[in-house]
Amino acid sequence: MRVAIVGLGLIGGSLALALRGGHDVAGFDNDPATRARAGSAGIRVVDSLDGLGSADATVVATPLSAVIPTLDALTTRPDAGVLIDTGSLKRDVAAYAEKSPQNARIVGGHPMAGTTSSGFGGADPDLFRGRPFLLVPTARSDDGSMSVAGALARAVGAEPTVCSAAVHDRTVAMLSAVPLAVALALAKSGADVAAFAGPGFRDATRLAATPPELTRALLGGNRDEVKAALRKFRSALDEVEAELG
Amino acid sequence: MRVAIVGLGLIGGSLALALRGGHDVAGFDNDPATRARAGSAGIRVVDSLDGLGSADATVVATPLSAVIPTLDALTTRPDAGVLIDTGSLKRDVAAYAEKSPQNARIVGGHPMAGTTSSGFGGADPDLFRGRPFLLVPTARSDDGSMSVAGALARAVGAEPTVCSAAVHDRTVAMLSAVPLAVALALAKSGADVAAFAGPGFRDATRLAATPPELTRALLGGNRDEVKAALRKFRSALDEVEAELG
Repeated sequence: MRVAIVGLGLIGGSLALALRGGHDVAGFDNDPATRARAGSAGIRVVDSLDGLGSADATVVATPLSAVIPTLDALTTRPDAGVLIDTGSLKRDVAAYAEKSPQNARIVGGHPMAGTTSSGFGGADPDLFRGRPFLLVPTARSDDGSMSVAGALARAVGAEPTVCSAAVHDRTVAMLSAVPLAVALALAKSGADVAAFAGPGFRDATRLAATPPELTRALLGGNRDEVKAALRKFRSALDEVEAELG
Repeated sequence: MRVAIVGLGLIGGSLALALRGGHDVAGFDNDPATRARAGSAGIRVVDSLDGLGSADATVVATPLSAVIPTLDALTTRPDAGVLIDTGSLKRDVAAYAEKSPQNARIVGGHPMAGTTSSGFGGADPDLFRGRPFLLVPTARSDDGSMSVAGALARAVGAEPTVCSAAVHDRTVAMLSAVPLAVALALAKSGADVAAFAGPGFRDATRLAATPPELTRALLGGNRDEVKAALRKFRSALDEVEAELG
């Protein structure tokens, strides 16, 4: 498989490290220091988007705010293969795909793996091993492109799972945004006694260290679903409290 | 230091394993299988409370429901030394101490360490290393007994910290009970999509696996403080949500 990767941060870098053994991988990152770092780690790095050349799949692993502009730049390149983004939200990708060129091939992707670290320095070839890799078909997905996306997910040890953009964003609201909001609230409410905390409290607040841009994207970029998921969480918490008597 | 330990579960077993190198340790557990297991691990085990003999400190590391009865049995034994329980709540210990024999020496103790595993099988000599070990003086604590309790905490690598029973129980409500209630509520509200969960959600719900007896004790046994801490948490969560716009 020939895979081009745009964005060599935690996710793109981990994909590159996971794939480079058995696949033809090329990577690009806007940041020269990241390119140098990835190059030193043995990734074949190019210094422009166009330099990525022909591929079966081009993965867009940029920060969420750059996903649509990057997809838009890539749809003009017929040799980029199937475009697969790895952002945490999928409605915007689905909406973009609907108005993208008819010959574009676009699949939304979201590996359910991550750490609170970011950048190529946190990249790990085993990051995706055994993790769900959600795949969201768009108006520009066909069987062939879904099959390429599935092969990519399996190639990094993940388990591809297909769902709609709406189901994806609802799922992520519950699995990522609510735990993040809860960790932020726990850290805030327990700040004055956190010095006495054991491992339970530390684990429960670990997500509060999520990078600010990702925090804003996960919470603010998916507001309606997050609010609905928070309502569901609050009502479950009420039930737990009711059992106290 | 001569240390007797009643209850060789996760906490008592870990204390025994941590102390046995440099101290004279004897342990007792109600359960013959636990005694056998601790004995095989090299702990000197006796088969009755009375068999524990003379000690500088006798640690009561039983389940919370047995702490007061065990303290009460030990106060009749002048050679048991300073009695130090390790339960997760301290008001009952403070109240018991007030009406205990005048010559009893009782200090409340609470190492802020633990895992969701229980029993001697989960015991680990490094469990307390670098962790806060809260010490609560009672009506039967004097400088000498506080000093013995502090030495015990340091002997297992923990950092002794003195606070009142009220502050302790309020702190534990925020640091242990609220994260536990939140984990239970997250697990409940995310149950239908948990199959897609990444490490963030798994960490955030890890405490939901807390053993039922400890869950009941932490939540139900400290109800007023837990309710107050949950109010504080909810209001912090409202603030986080308000930032979504």
